[in-house]
Amino acid sequence: MRVCVVGCGAVGSLFAATLAQLDDVEVWAYDLYREHVDAINRDGLRLSGAAEALGRPTATSDPGELPPCDFGIVATKAMHTSAAIEATAAAFANGCVATVQNGLGNEEAIAKHTERVIRGTTFPAGKLLEPGHVQWDVKGDTTFGPFEPKPAPRDEIARLAEACTRAGMPTHAVEDARGPQWRKVIFNAATNPVGALTRLTHGRVCEEPELRRLVSSLVDEGKAVAAAQGIVLDADPEDLIDHAAKPEVAYGHKASMLQDVEARRQTEIDYLNGGIVRFGEEHGIPTPLNRAIWSLVKGLEQSW
Amino acid sequence: MRVCVVGCGAVGSLFAATLAQLDDVEVWAYDLYREHVDAINRDGLRLSGAAEALGRPTATSDPGELPPCDFGIVATKAMHTSAAIEATAAAFANGCVATVQNGLGNEEAIAKHTERVIRGTTFPAGKLLEPGHVQWDVKGDTTFGPFEPKPAPRDEIARLAEACTRAGMPTHAVEDARGPQWRKVIFNAATNPVGALTRLTHGRVCEEPELRRLVSSLVDEGKAVAAAQGIVLDADPEDLIDHAAKPEVAYGHKASMLQDVEARRQTEIDYLNGGIVRFGEEHGIPTPLNRAIWSLVKGLEQSW
Repeated sequence: MRVCVVGCGAVGSLFAATLAQLDDVEVWAYDLYREHVDAINRDGLRLSGAAEALGRPTATSDPGELPPCDFGIVATKAMHTSAAIEATAAAFANGCVATVQNGLGNEEAIAKHTERVIRGTTFPAGKLLEPGHVQWDVKGDTTFGPFEPKPAPRDEIARLAEACTRAGMPTHAVEDARGPQWRKVIFNAATNPVGALTRLTHGRVCEEPELRRLVSSLVDEGKAVAAAQGIVLDADPEDLIDHAAKPEVAYGHKASMLQDVEARRQTEIDYLNGGIVRFGEEHGIPTPLNRAIWSLVKGLEQSW
Repeated sequence: MRVCVVGCGAVGSLFAATLAQLDDVEVWAYDLYREHVDAINRDGLRLSGAAEALGRPTATSDPGELPPCDFGIVATKAMHTSAAIEATAAAFANGCVATVQNGLGNEEAIAKHTERVIRGTTFPAGKLLEPGHVQWDVKGDTTFGPFEPKPAPRDEIARLAEACTRAGMPTHAVEDARGPQWRKVIFNAATNPVGALTRLTHGRVCEEPELRRLVSSLVDEGKAVAAAQGIVLDADPEDLIDHAAKPEVAYGHKASMLQDVEARRQTEIDYLNGGIVRFGEEHGIPTPLNRAIWSLVKGLEQSW
């Protein structure tokens, strides 16, 4: 089988490098960062940290070079989904395309340009250390399921999940992948922007009683929006928050959105709290706190 | 009559310098900033900007030096009210004490140490340029009225208001001073922290549709808390917001709380949004957005 990872940053690289180690999988990596592409083609794609790996995908910044693929795995930042899938869609004319991105709305964007879409959520995380080299910070599971309006066939979803699992990225193929996705979105939307606005690390956001109260109120709004859609969360997002606040996990960790704010980069707020607000509006669920947080982070972006 | 201004920063200096120009008013200025006290005693207290004035109050950092006074005018930042009135209360054993401070709770703090309290709100603003010299940025009215649980006598309130007006600080003595106070608190609580969290100037906070929507939602909570207490606002706080957003007024102005945040100074958030939340709790009015904003700014203070 042939897989193309679209957006080969930290998370994309975890999939590309591990899958490329399998004999029966041919991996392409599409990314606009030329030095990274050149390093991958020259030296391979190296992972270090939580596990070591060296894979040799074929990398390119030119979508015209991509051959027809059985699967796409989109891993760009959420604000780049539309441009990335529009550029690469021809390679997936007969394939299935999964997302392993943060936030809400990625499946919808992918479905505008392709026919068989896989809803996905992944928990592993890392960071790009240098071109061709990614640090693997956190291991974790991935879940794939059909994107309901334009679903990929079940056996194809199972085939991709099996390959990922065999490569070292444990992946479950499920009937309804919305539960894990909303659990992660609710967790991220409740904690990341609070860290970004207060400049506090994850642990301090969760231990300060008034901030934790705000976090839990944001979680409650997200849960209500999920429930209105008939989504059953696979676990309580509060457990993720308690877990992440532990000293040995992410107590001193600056949420990625705080890192974005400190670097004055555009954040994923539109796809986290903004997504919860949009789905809330569609289903008649008020989300005033998520809306307030969304406005504040957008305002902060505009101050740069 | 003898008046002591307690806290002789920008706003306190406006009252001290103008009142000290009157032949029939003896003015003392109590402040802990020694260089400012020394400069006032050496060269007088000078105002420039919206109007010019040079007054010669007697300044001191030693509350033991204060003679018995007919009136106090407390003008510290709200977080310093208790310490300042506790230190100076003996001077007001037979006098009346007014507040011209920001926020909610100052009258209550003053009433713990003195018997006759004047609820007050003032709109003039300025900044300390150097010891003994204050820039007068904005002219505006002051309102005095009785603090209901420990009211100053009406004729005494009228006497202080008349002196202030004659000195060039137009002041109204009213039966119920809560309307202007809550109008200003609601205005400040809805705009200042949004500027502080987003780092945007006043004009941009008010023109960005989603931020203005947040500002108006904060205003609505404040209005509901005021209404539950039977307070009739003397005008709509939204008018103040529209006014302040005008290019010629305060479009490019960084709210004082944003200045505090940039300088990493403690803000007055506990007495603005925190005050609205506390009064809301007492009267059974939910204030989730003011509570969220309060938590975020407190979190930001803790990040320093």
